Amino acid sequence: MSESLKIGIIGLGRMGKIHLGNLCTKIMGVEVIAVMNPSQKGLAIAKRYNIPLTTTNVDVIFNHPNIDAVVICSPTDTHSDYVNRAAIAGKAIFCEKPLDLSLEKALHTLRIVKEAKAPLMMAFNQRLDPTFEEVKNKIMEGKVGQIHTIHIISRDPTPPPISFIKHSGGLFMDMTIHDFDMARHLVGKEVLEVFAKGYNLLDPEIGEAGDIDTGIILLTFENNITVTIENSRKAVYGYDQRIEVFGSLGMIQANNPLKTNTEFSDESGTHLPRNLDFFMDRYLVSYQREMEAFIDALKNKTPMPITGEDALHAMKVAIAANISVRENRPVKISEVE
Amino acid sequence: MSESLKIGIIGLGRMGKIHLGNLCTKIMGVEVIAVMNPSQKGLAIAKRYNIPLTTTNVDVIFNHPNIDAVVICSPTDTHSDYVNRAAIAGKAIFCEKPLDLSLEKALHTLRIVKEAKAPLMMAFNQRLDPTFEEVKNKIMEGKVGQIHTIHIISRDPTPPPISFIKHSGGLFMDMTIHDFDMARHLVGKEVLEVFAKGYNLLDPEIGEAGDIDTGIILLTFENNITVTIENSRKAVYGYDQRIEVFGSLGMIQANNPLKTNTEFSDESGTHLPRNLDFFMDRYLVSYQREMEAFIDALKNKTPMPITGEDALHAMKVAIAANISVRENRPVKISEVE
Amino acid sequence: MSESLKIGIIGLGRMGKIHLGNLCTKIMGVEVIAVMNPSQKGLAIAKRYNIPLTTTNVDVIFNHPNIDAVVICSPTDTHSDYVNRAAIAGKAIFCEKPLDLSLEKALHTLRIVKEAKAPLMMAFNQRLDPTFEEVKNKIMEGKVGQIHTIHIISRDPTPPPISFIKHSGGLFMDMTIHDFDMARHLVGKEVLEVFAKGYNLLDPEIGEAGDIDTGIILLTFENNITVTIENSRKAVYGYDQRIEVFGSLGMIQANNPLKTNTEFSDESGTHLPRNLDFFMDRYLVSYQREMEAFIDALKNKTPMPITGEDALHAMKVAIAANISVRENRPVKISEVE
Amino acid sequence: MSESLKIGIIGLGRMGKIHLGNLCTKIMGVEVIAVMNPSQKGLAIAKRYNIPLTTTNVDVIFNHPNIDAVVICSPTDTHSDYVNRAAIAGKAIFCEKPLDLSLEKALHTLRIVKEAKAPLMMAFNQRLDPTFEEVKNKIMEGKVGQIHTIHIISRDPTPPPISFIKHSGGLFMDMTIHDFDMARHLVGKEVLEVFAKGYNLLDPEIGEAGDIDTGIILLTFENNITVTIENSRKAVYGYDQRIEVFGSLGMIQANNPLKTNTEFSDESGTHLPRNLDFFMDRYLVSYQREMEAFIDALKNKTPMPITGEDALHAMKVAIAANISVRENRPVKISEVE
Repeated sequence: MSESLKIGIIGLGRMGKIHLGNLCTKIMGVEVIAVMNPSQKGLAIAKRYNIPLTTTNVDVIFNHPNIDAVVICSPTDTHSDYVNRAAIAGKAIFCEKPLDLSLEKALHTLRIVKEAKAPLMMAFNQRLDPTFEEVKNKIMEGKVGQIHTIHIISRDPTPPPISFIKHSGGLFMDMTIHDFDMARHLVGKEVLEVFAKGYNLLDPEIGEAGDIDTGIILLTFENNITVTIENSRKAVYGYDQRIEVFGSLGMIQANNPLKTNTEFSDESGTHLPRNLDFFMDRYLVSYQREMEAFIDALKNKTPMPITGEDALHAMKVAIAANISVRENRPVKISEVE
Repeated sequence: MSESLKIGIIGLGRMGKIHLGNLCTKIMGVEVIAVMNPSQKGLAIAKRYNIPLTTTNVDVIFNHPNIDAVVICSPTDTHSDYVNRAAIAGKAIFCEKPLDLSLEKALHTLRIVKEAKAPLMMAFNQRLDPTFEEVKNKIMEGKVGQIHTIHIISRDPTPPPISFIKHSGGLFMDMTIHDFDMARHLVGKEVLEVFAKGYNLLDPEIGEAGDIDTGIILLTFENNITVTIENSRKAVYGYDQRIEVFGSLGMIQANNPLKTNTEFSDESGTHLPRNLDFFMDRYLVSYQREMEAFIDALKNKTPMPITGEDALHAMKVAIAANISVRENRPVKISEVE
Repeated sequence: MSESLKIGIIGLGRMGKIHLGNLCTKIMGVEVIAVMNPSQKGLAIAKRYNIPLTTTNVDVIFNHPNIDAVVICSPTDTHSDYVNRAAIAGKAIFCEKPLDLSLEKALHTLRIVKEAKAPLMMAFNQRLDPTFEEVKNKIMEGKVGQIHTIHIISRDPTPPPISFIKHSGGLFMDMTIHDFDMARHLVGKEVLEVFAKGYNLLDPEIGEAGDIDTGIILLTFENNITVTIENSRKAVYGYDQRIEVFGSLGMIQANNPLKTNTEFSDESGTHLPRNLDFFMDRYLVSYQREMEAFIDALKNKTPMPITGEDALHAMKVAIAANISVRENRPVKISEVE
Repeated sequence: MSESLKIGIIGLGRMGKIHLGNLCTKIMGVEVIAVMNPSQKGLAIAKRYNIPLTTTNVDVIFNHPNIDAVVICSPTDTHSDYVNRAAIAGKAIFCEKPLDLSLEKALHTLRIVKEAKAPLMMAFNQRLDPTFEEVKNKIMEGKVGQIHTIHIISRDPTPPPISFIKHSGGLFMDMTIHDFDMARHLVGKEVLEVFAKGYNLLDPEIGEAGDIDTGIILLTFENNITVTIENSRKAVYGYDQRIEVFGSLGMIQANNPLKTNTEFSDESGTHLPRNLDFFMDRYLVSYQREMEAFIDALKNKTPMPITGEDALHAMKVAIAANISVRENRPVKISEVE
């Protein structure tokens, strides 16, 4: 298989392992030839897939002449730097979100990527979830007609550790960013204005860490399309990810899969299982499909399906949402530059 | 309104009250001019609707020259006799099921009805339930294609009193009779053969009273269509009435309405309300619609939608089912004469 | 039945007929002794229920010494005047919403009602819908825990005639008013602030008539509870009335009943029937239950379950929402006086 | 990993590939050290997983001293022979169903397995499907109470090729065998009697090949438990696999997963996606879980969860069902020896 794409993976945490497994066993025409992880222990998993080269030194990846593309799954604060270096090294790049927490650094990185003409795909995996993709398809087929309103519900089963929250960039930048991207993706236009409410209704420690745990956001798009988003860091019934698109010709809803397809009926009524626990179960398929989409775009030399500009726009919406909460007023995206 | 149909109701028990209310307040072009009930107390309800004539003597109804039609809601053991007398008196007849527990008496009554050319409608109300009617409609529209199999589930929330069971004619004649009629109605052909299992799995007193509480029946129709029926006298989760029709082009299912359209989600999953309690809630609309159908047929001089022959066929199937349980063999309907 | 409450009904339009039927045939211990309708033709329906007195003159109702309570179902622009006169005449009052389109006139009427100590119930019937009532019950039982967010969807199947829209008071006052009341009812606290978007996305004639057809509203309550509302004058799939309450311990959702409980499966998937057509089917039961609640409160001399103050608060929210759309800013309810 | 179990796979058709992938990438503590496939071409897939030994000669597998367990996925007519040889060679055995089409040969094989004390697991994978497992769990937890009736629906999306049908052993032996096993598994007792109907309602070629395409079976178990099964070779709406268990304390239902979790509403109602296409999607997880269960039982030296006796019992029920169709009478399992 001399023509297979050669991949280097940076970071073998939770997402790195998923991408490693998918690239090695499910995706055709690629070869993972190197993996980097800062700890030796984390590299053990690579043995299972007979990866020829394992290293704790990220330079080995960037300097490797045979690597065509890098998959960046390292901590958030390394993303923009690694993207920069990969772009300069002439590699194609798949990068976990976010690009960076700083708009300035993100803009800088995008300039470097552009100059280097490096293909860059951002991992907004939810776009590749088959259920959400069907929502997009129905819109594209014209079945919904003109979109009037969209409602997105995104609730985690439980808040992350306070230590994570402190460096997460805040609810809007860390969690709602997926919903901002999804809203843009579904509408197919740009956000013009944001009005947002954010509260600390759960653990007071979250508030003390400077973050909120509950967000309600109203986005206004071109053509008077309105998207409302509801976020919570804690839904006791499990991970909750739903979308409803209402238009002139119909409505398309995306609902949650449950743990099993059973219904139990007793004296008190009928009982369905819990929602799936979290994103690792809910979006399993989307992780494979986003990687396939990346490889396909590389092989066919077509544009990346999810770009650095997408990441940048979502960031701006998050920043505007933070201003809106602080100042209790609708904020134009054009104010964020 | 001189041209309105004049109705006399016999029996103001549970069903009589329902028909009285529907005829007085919901159905156009009819007038209930007389009601009979053996006890004076039971007649009190008639005052609310200003019924001109109330009586404890059933002869008053049959002899009343202005009554066009009688609605027979008296106890089962009076049905065939009252139908006979009404027919001879030249009245149109709406009769609660069953016509009689004895095949011989039922045959006799049908001969009298036929000779008198009396319009007779039997109250298999489930045919007029909007959900079940939609099942029939989908079949008639050809959406299901050739019917291959039908599965009917009919479960009561709780067994009737032993005193009732003793005079009920048994599970198949009292309860499954609705399902036998529904099976014939949906298939649109005659039952050829019955294989049935019947057990006393609930209260042993039911067995001691000579009855079963659980029935599983396999009906074979012309064209190799098979209908399976499941009956129980006790579903702890409430009244359960479902139908599934499977055919060459599709499947149509009738499900249960629930008490409310709510879903509650907590740590243990998602919870739906109980089924409706029993037939009085589940079939409320069908009681009005069957009466409308009776009145419409009378006014338009069209054939009755559900006939004495329908009742007779369902009886024969019940009798064959009883033989099948006893002898553990498939029984041809032609054996029952 | 000398102790029965004596009722006079004013207006025999759509709602008047429903209340007449319910009072005459379904509610115990009341007697409709008079009905008023401006046209003689509209009074014909009263014959069916043997109403002793029919009149085209509303004074007859107010002056009738035996009438204990009036049910006001006349056009909107008569409501406050008739409530005033009924209160002064010493009658109890059941009044269809809205009390008035003018806040000033509504305040005036409430003062008169208060001085006269007249019991007044406003017909926010949706509170008495069994499905929505179950939502409220789950909240009151503590099953939802602290409420964090509520989402209300209310979509009509088709816009009303332009002639109606011109005198309706606008989308927020005519349609969203039910959702404003429901939000207050479910939260059990007062609205503090409104942010609203309103658009004319359907027939341009609606915009030319000065109204909107699509509304998205974000209400902020005490305790940082947020309610979002989505309204549209046209859902092609039928009447859409849903509520979702999300809290610290669980979530309770109210979904739509469908025309029948069938599911049809064919090559293209599984198909469910349409939603119910409109409020006349969807809220049928609630009309009976609100009247029962009125009669019960009168008989037991308990406070009215839905008051003039409730109507007033909902009006203020509607007025604030209109300001918010105009000025594109969050508006405090305290600004509306 | 010197203590890992060494596996040889026989046959790299559809199921062999699935087991290869699962054993190589998802299951801990095992090593596939050899694969056999009659064609060289079929062996190519093994390269992806770096399998040290590939062969077209099955003897290589049986004679290999280091292989602890074999996974038999070769054509049906080789199963009993290969199981015999693996048992004699001292290997543990995982075998796809059926053991054999001949009761005599199956009995002979089970004797050899018993003498050799070879661990043997039969691949009735549906028992390991999470949804069906939850059904079994609810029964074991006592939530259903005493089982009264079970209804199993099993419908393929499309009939297999006539060439396959000719050597399949017939509908009951090829397809219903899963349902017979599931019925025994859920009830936890033995079938006593079978009454079955079988028809050729689809393509006449199926009938000409001596098979049926539609089966309706009524199984009677100890304790008067009844299981009804509905089979069809063609459900136009996709693969249909459902179970309903009804008991004294409750009901547990297993429903179908759909292609996506979307609902689309338009003028004609609400539309859900198709069922999954076939067993490869529907039972994906169960293939991994059955292999895990096999490996776990080997490592922990516990009894195999699904045994040769299980396969034998299911075969007998299939044989009795065939007799029942032919003779139109209930057939005791004890008649089949």
